[in-house]
Amino acid sequence: MKKSIGAKTIIYPTPVLVVGTYDKAGKPNAMTASWGGICCSKPPAIAVSLRKATYTHGNIVQRKAFTINIPSENYVREADFFGIVSGKREDKFFATRLTAVKSDLVDAPYIKEFHFVLECNLLDIIEIGSHTQFIGEIIDVKVDESVIGEDGLPDIEKVKPILFAPESRFYYGVGRYLGKAFSIGRQD
Amino acid sequence: MKKSIGAKTIIYPTPVLVVGTYDKAGKPNAMTASWGGICCSKPPAIAVSLRKATYTHGNIVQRKAFTINIPSENYVREADFFGIVSGKREDKFFATRLTAVKSDLVDAPYIKEFHFVLECNLLDIIEIGSHTQFIGEIIDVKVDESVIGEDGLPDIEKVKPILFAPESRFYYGVGRYLGKAFSIGRQD
Repeated sequence: MKKSIGAKTIIYPTPVLVVGTYDKAGKPNAMTASWGGICCSKPPAIAVSLRKATYTHGNIVQRKAFTINIPSENYVREADFFGIVSGKREDKFFATRLTAVKSDLVDAPYIKEFHFVLECNLLDIIEIGSHTQFIGEIIDVKVDESVIGEDGLPDIEKVKPILFAPESRFYYGVGRYLGKAFSIGRQD
Repeated sequence: MKKSIGAKTIIYPTPVLVVGTYDKAGKPNAMTASWGGICCSKPPAIAVSLRKATYTHGNIVQRKAFTINIPSENYVREADFFGIVSGKREDKFFATRLTAVKSDLVDAPYIKEFHFVLECNLLDIIEIGSHTQFIGEIIDVKVDESVIGEDGLPDIEKVKPILFAPESRFYYGVGRYLGKAFSIGRQD
């Protein structure tokens, strides 16, 4: 028997996306968001939703670009900090001692220490309600060689991304391998 | 040093969302999608992107409602099957012996055996490219009592959702607890 818990914004898992932007003065900022995901294959695109009050919101509207940086488990403190503090009041790169690197493809900085980075140009802005959804075309994905597996693709077990559980607000790591998609469900 | 791997649709993790719909004859269908995520807090809303060719795409356009069902690890085969086979050709509930339950809130069925279900009414349709993004307002969340923790909230460790790693196409479970959000990053 199922129990109603009301209209809550919960799915499992949600990602921990650190959005990299420049403000109008060229100061880099990083903000953590969990409302987002891949939204199109051609063009390759990602959606991330932000409240209007965030510093990053204004930066994306102005610069029309952002990066998505995937923190690994050992940067869970920095990733959480990026979601607590506003770039209006604090230089978050200075505070965390992480390094903002200027993308040579889009007008946004990425985080050097994070192993997995998407560089995006703004494609569309959708006003939904409390949140604005920014759709970014993925121009390139840049990864550290250390997280590339034997097949030449990034390996989630090496990237060690963080999962977020909404409402309870807990962070988790990636667990055990369950099987291969488009394969394990085939009926033979 | 970062290496470019091209404009790929990868973030970690992506969710495994099973979309429940009725077709125009009232036949229930279930389809697995990983391009999606929460997209707004007020109204509570979720976005899921589907190719036009899918049966579910037509169902949502027609019925203006869908459910999002989160499979647990022990339904990884069924979840994968829902992403391989088209509802145009096969009755996926009959094939998997899972049970479609008519929602009393929206015009869509949910999956009885899955512990975590969102009931959604269509709010907006965004054409991006290969994929159409359906934005659904979350009308209610229904969960099995067995996955509710001591704090009254669903517990991700009991829900045991599946993660999907794009490109390599591997499924994973949830791993170890890393910390509390909006807390572990505070600088004291």
